[in-house]
Amino acid sequence: MTSEYTYERPVRFAETDAAGIVHFSSFFLYMEECEHAFLESIGACAFQRDGWVMKGWPRVNVQCSYLEPLRYGDLCQVRLLIERIGTSSLSYAFELINKHPEGSAVAARGRMTTVWVEVDSEGLAGGSHSIPESVRVLIEEAPKECLAAWE
Amino acid sequence: MTSEYTYERPVRFAETDAAGIVHFSSFFLYMEECEHAFLESIGACAFQRDGWVMKGWPRVNVQCSYLEPLRYGDLCQVRLLIERIGTSSLSYAFELINKHPEGSAVAARGRMTTVWVEVDSEGLAGGSHSIPESVRVLIEEAPKECLAAWE
Amino acid sequence: MTSEYTYERPVRFAETDAAGIVHFSSFFLYMEECEHAFLESIGACAFQRDGWVMKGWPRVNVQCSYLEPLRYGDLCQVRLLIERIGTSSLSYAFELINKHPEGSAVAARGRMTTVWVEVDSEGLAGGSHSIPESVRVLIEEAPKECLAAWE
Amino acid sequence: MTSEYTYERPVRFAETDAAGIVHFSSFFLYMEECEHAFLESIGACAFQRDGWVMKGWPRVNVQCSYLEPLRYGDLCQVRLLIERIGTSSLSYAFELINKHPEGSAVAARGRMTTVWVEVDSEGLAGGSHSIPESVRVLIEEAPKECLAAWE
Repeated sequence: MTSEYTYERPVRFAETDAAGIVHFSSFFLYMEECEHAFLESIGACAFQRDGWVMKGWPRVNVQCSYLEPLRYGDLCQVRLLIERIGTSSLSYAFELINKHPEGSAVAARGRMTTVWVEVDSEGLAGGSHSIPESVRVLIEEAPKECLAAWE
Repeated sequence: MTSEYTYERPVRFAETDAAGIVHFSSFFLYMEECEHAFLESIGACAFQRDGWVMKGWPRVNVQCSYLEPLRYGDLCQVRLLIERIGTSSLSYAFELINKHPEGSAVAARGRMTTVWVEVDSEGLAGGSHSIPESVRVLIEEAPKECLAAWE
Repeated sequence: MTSEYTYERPVRFAETDAAGIVHFSSFFLYMEECEHAFLESIGACAFQRDGWVMKGWPRVNVQCSYLEPLRYGDLCQVRLLIERIGTSSLSYAFELINKHPEGSAVAARGRMTTVWVEVDSEGLAGGSHSIPESVRVLIEEAPKECLAAWE
Repeated sequence: MTSEYTYERPVRFAETDAAGIVHFSSFFLYMEECEHAFLESIGACAFQRDGWVMKGWPRVNVQCSYLEPLRYGDLCQVRLLIERIGTSSLSYAFELINKHPEGSAVAARGRMTTVWVEVDSEGLAGGSHSIPESVRVLIEEAPKECLAAWE
């Protein structure tokens, strides 16, 4: 049973803006990449589309608090914790660490609530669906004290 | 004294993703465009950089709740309300309306807290600065009942 | 019969990079926006997807030469000329003008070759298709001397 | 002396568009990431900004030919060859390979001409500068036959 995941990637130049730092919207790309790498790591489907059939995790709510800027040349470590497993929803907490040679620092903290959806030619067919059992057996909520440390 | 602003722009194809809808991170681009158009409309500086001197409104916290997808071909109306004016911070609430020919619908609601910062060659020189008086006299917080309608 | 189109839009902050200028890849977004506005202006389909059925203009080849940087605060005028109408392909030439208050200047020149494609559940069904007659009767190639001025 | 470099990265969901494939403009992000990783691999500066002083490789001309689409789930291998070393310019040829489990295929071929620029408080100070000798001694043009294979 997994409740956490860690993902690393360098800041890319195209993600910066004229203020010389990573644009605030790009932090959500980092979180999404981490989420997708996590889902892949447990063999779960992140997104699939085949004609009318589409499966994935649309976002219900996202947020981010910015503590320190990220710059081109920085290495960003994204840490994921599963915050809550609902019937069809999956909520994550994220911590983005700037692993700058001069020392690591928390750059941002985020949250994301997603919901499992399978669409067919009839459309949503009754709304979002339950998280597949094959996924549910592999994941668990992170301990409250871990999550609390990220408040 | 202004407490609201409305901005409109079509969905651009490059903002969509393989799910056929606007990528969730692009909603923040829409909010930022509206914020910048608002600041411009009152003659306030949105961003300026000249060598070491930099002025702008870095983000402290942002969030977005997604209600209905936006698609290529849709027209997005972004409504901004000033939620709170602090000493150096300015908080906005946003409503993103899908003005689809078939009828308008709330696509998303967001929040953004920004802080006025002036940097010079000495760096932040004591942290963020007070919102310039020339801006402060032009803005006011939106009535609580307007904001409450967007909860 | 149309062979040209003009489109205007301000530079958006998120399109800039740490060098303080619009990222080179964003120039293609400007061209695509102009192309789509042009197609819309003549009532042609720019993109449509419905289950297995998909219609649009995938790119075969694009290029851009950069003459002057664009910055946040600039207004970009995109001029489109139809360079060549093939059986299934449509080639455009673009000029991007920086309409800065201090005076206009050519920021970039680009080219884009697209091809009309209709896909159904059988896939490409024999490759790309001919440009619809309803579109063909509305467009013509721009005079050679207009195109030559953009070399 | 180096004349080639290979870089790999998965397609990210946010880079796809509603046609279900990687947006054509994102191919340039892949090329830029490869270029920056190459420069870093030889210890050359890709970009630096410090107040008025800015060093980097602005683009003069870029182009891309699209052969096969890239999709979410694909792994993209970017191969770089140095095409030409000028006094201040550096031209690259790129091949983007889709390393799909079902078999590899050339997804696109690109070209990019960049120019070494150092800016100080006096501005460009006479235009672009010569490629630093410390970089020049580390690089060489790829054999013509390698480049020809990518035509």
